[in-house]
Amino acid sequence: MQIELLTIGDELLLGFTVDTNAAYLARALAAIGVEIVHRTTVGDDAEKIAAAVSEAIERTGAVITTGGLGPTADDRTRPVIATLFGRELVLDESIVAQIEARFWRMTSAKMPQTNIVQAMVPAGARVLENHHGTAPGLWIEDAQGRWVAMLPGVPREMRGLTQDSILPILRERIGAAPVAIVSRTIRTTGIGESALAERLGELGKSVDGMPLAFLPGWAGVDLRLTSRTLPPDEATRALDSAERMLRDVAGPVVYGTESDDLTELILDMCRERGLHIATAESCTGGLLGARLTAIPGSSDVYHGGVIAYDNSVKTKLLGVSDVTLREHGAVSEQAAREMAEGCAKSLGAQIGVGITGVAGPGGGTEEKPVGTVWIAVSGIGETRALGRVYVGDREEIRMRATQASLDQIRRGLASI
Amino acid sequence: MQIELLTIGDELLLGFTVDTNAAYLARALAAIGVEIVHRTTVGDDAEKIAAAVSEAIERTGAVITTGGLGPTADDRTRPVIATLFGRELVLDESIVAQIEARFWRMTSAKMPQTNIVQAMVPAGARVLENHHGTAPGLWIEDAQGRWVAMLPGVPREMRGLTQDSILPILRERIGAAPVAIVSRTIRTTGIGESALAERLGELGKSVDGMPLAFLPGWAGVDLRLTSRTLPPDEATRALDSAERMLRDVAGPVVYGTESDDLTELILDMCRERGLHIATAESCTGGLLGARLTAIPGSSDVYHGGVIAYDNSVKTKLLGVSDVTLREHGAVSEQAAREMAEGCAKSLGAQIGVGITGVAGPGGGTEEKPVGTVWIAVSGIGETRALGRVYVGDREEIRMRATQASLDQIRRGLASI
Repeated sequence: MQIELLTIGDELLLGFTVDTNAAYLARALAAIGVEIVHRTTVGDDAEKIAAAVSEAIERTGAVITTGGLGPTADDRTRPVIATLFGRELVLDESIVAQIEARFWRMTSAKMPQTNIVQAMVPAGARVLENHHGTAPGLWIEDAQGRWVAMLPGVPREMRGLTQDSILPILRERIGAAPVAIVSRTIRTTGIGESALAERLGELGKSVDGMPLAFLPGWAGVDLRLTSRTLPPDEATRALDSAERMLRDVAGPVVYGTESDDLTELILDMCRERGLHIATAESCTGGLLGARLTAIPGSSDVYHGGVIAYDNSVKTKLLGVSDVTLREHGAVSEQAAREMAEGCAKSLGAQIGVGITGVAGPGGGTEEKPVGTVWIAVSGIGETRALGRVYVGDREEIRMRATQASLDQIRRGLASI
Repeated sequence: MQIELLTIGDELLLGFTVDTNAAYLARALAAIGVEIVHRTTVGDDAEKIAAAVSEAIERTGAVITTGGLGPTADDRTRPVIATLFGRELVLDESIVAQIEARFWRMTSAKMPQTNIVQAMVPAGARVLENHHGTAPGLWIEDAQGRWVAMLPGVPREMRGLTQDSILPILRERIGAAPVAIVSRTIRTTGIGESALAERLGELGKSVDGMPLAFLPGWAGVDLRLTSRTLPPDEATRALDSAERMLRDVAGPVVYGTESDDLTELILDMCRERGLHIATAESCTGGLLGARLTAIPGSSDVYHGGVIAYDNSVKTKLLGVSDVTLREHGAVSEQAAREMAEGCAKSLGAQIGVGITGVAGPGGGTEEKPVGTVWIAVSGIGETRALGRVYVGDREEIRMRATQASLDQIRRGLASI
């Protein structure tokens, strides 16, 4: 099934807002076999909305619009599309009641009179209930089966309506076994793009006819497989099988799929084993702690840490020796080891992590260029250290360093 | 001047890529008085590209396209638009030479033969040099002055070409004194949206005829003024004057404009005064340290900190008393005060920051619901504490807490 998307709003055309709705809708629809073949954006201008909707109805006869359903004068979608379909706008009392109830619940205030236009519905249109805001979605259709579904532009509301109404309606219309466009992401870390490509060999191009894309980032290299020729169920099976093949060949660099987060994985692994973590961060300045504590419930694994930005903090709170700092420098394997062991001891955790490096843009030397990072993990067998020179800007180098330190814990725990 | 934008690429329609180019172009063009009135996205399909370009030429006669200029078979923009304008594609030897030189410089390798199509240019088209990639931009125009400018889809290349070629060409065409759409953002923190609106009174709607938008976020409430009716120079003067009026009425809640970051401001203020900062974080888990150390050169102000996630770390490393934890709890004004003073002492800094709270989603009680945060700053006069109950999810609550702690330092330093 092919449809079009029309996103409406001056904000979008002026560039004040990046259109994330379009990407969300495309993925959600592709997963059930519905393809967006044309996307248009116009401002809050009745004439331009009318022209864009007419063209889309002519071309594909299946259109989703987002935006322009608010209560103010620049919200034109409802009346414009009603006119195009030759329908009157009529007041829907049940919507009035819902909006009133919502206002009362959220703000203990009465519904402002301006909101009443949100209860004006083109005659014969189907009302799609909005559980996340005041403007309901609307589905209008003519005798030839050509339709326009109107959704609000607020991302949370648009997403809710897509899940609650649009996907179920479209699924029903498509019936069984359309072709779905579904992708699967397999996440790797600790290996570069070209080394991974070499390891994968022919699989690096495609697996069972499904193309494979390499998506490098600070978290590692994600592999994205896309199935475009199979019905949903078969596509899932094909992706499952391809994932197994890729995991076999890629080996332990694979840590998860889709939006799996290495932090959650580490916390789970430690929780199962009754282990606690402490951190000692220099160049990452608290970023590893922030990542660990971003996960709700991390407090039963993560004890805390020391941000040892100044060298005096390294010696005083972590017990890094003056000799180490003088002879090897603060960015050194030896310092990372002493930081890891020092924080574990001082904070009473089994696992200690030490990170020290040159995040740049200044501070690099010939011997220790910007991007040089030493990471040490203590408490999983012998203390292990890892030295890397990362490319990227300050933020990337810091994020890569936190990711590598988590990966060191993962690999350590997996090996015992 | 009104133009249209056509973004081309299967990736965009499938939602794998969020279209950030569109927002960038809109802002860059609006600033010189060029308005994008219509935006279309189609896939890598010759027929659909042709249809979309023809429609746009009919409607406005001024079109920028992005994407589809790469060297592979699914890059169709060049031949499709050449055909529409009735031009042959001819090989441009100077582009071949440039691409070859670029390959040699970047990879020490010869140009792959596939790249030669990027040197095929519609006869009579103007070549726009690309300093960030291989595909040059192209400007094609007919006898009636209707034009299409083709830019690559890679954001860095598209941005470079916009700055180097598109903006200068359009500026020249528009001539003097067009109307510009320019906005200015004034950043506030530590005040809610409705309290700020109340304080601003009539100015909260518009200033000198320029509409004012309230944009609340974790960093505070940004105020965005937009001028749409004046030539560029006059618009700048009007925005300067409006900014002064808003600053006068809003008072000390204003901390900057545009993308000003409170962290940089604090670091500068401390640097000028020769002061050092230490942090003690519980619910924010290192996020404040991470924000401070995200700024290059922060090491001359920020000594480091303690992430006191577990209560034992609060007592052992920060000297928070057992009595405080027992009688007031870890989330309390008293604990925040002892954390601030404890870290300043232990890390040898003049200014200490203590943050403790319930970031949620679990852990809330009737007395201390999710969002409860206590912040204390020591070393600027007497230790001052601030208690707040923030709304939002875990990440928002944590970010708001770091922002409020920085704002406490700003206000403290400004008052002495």
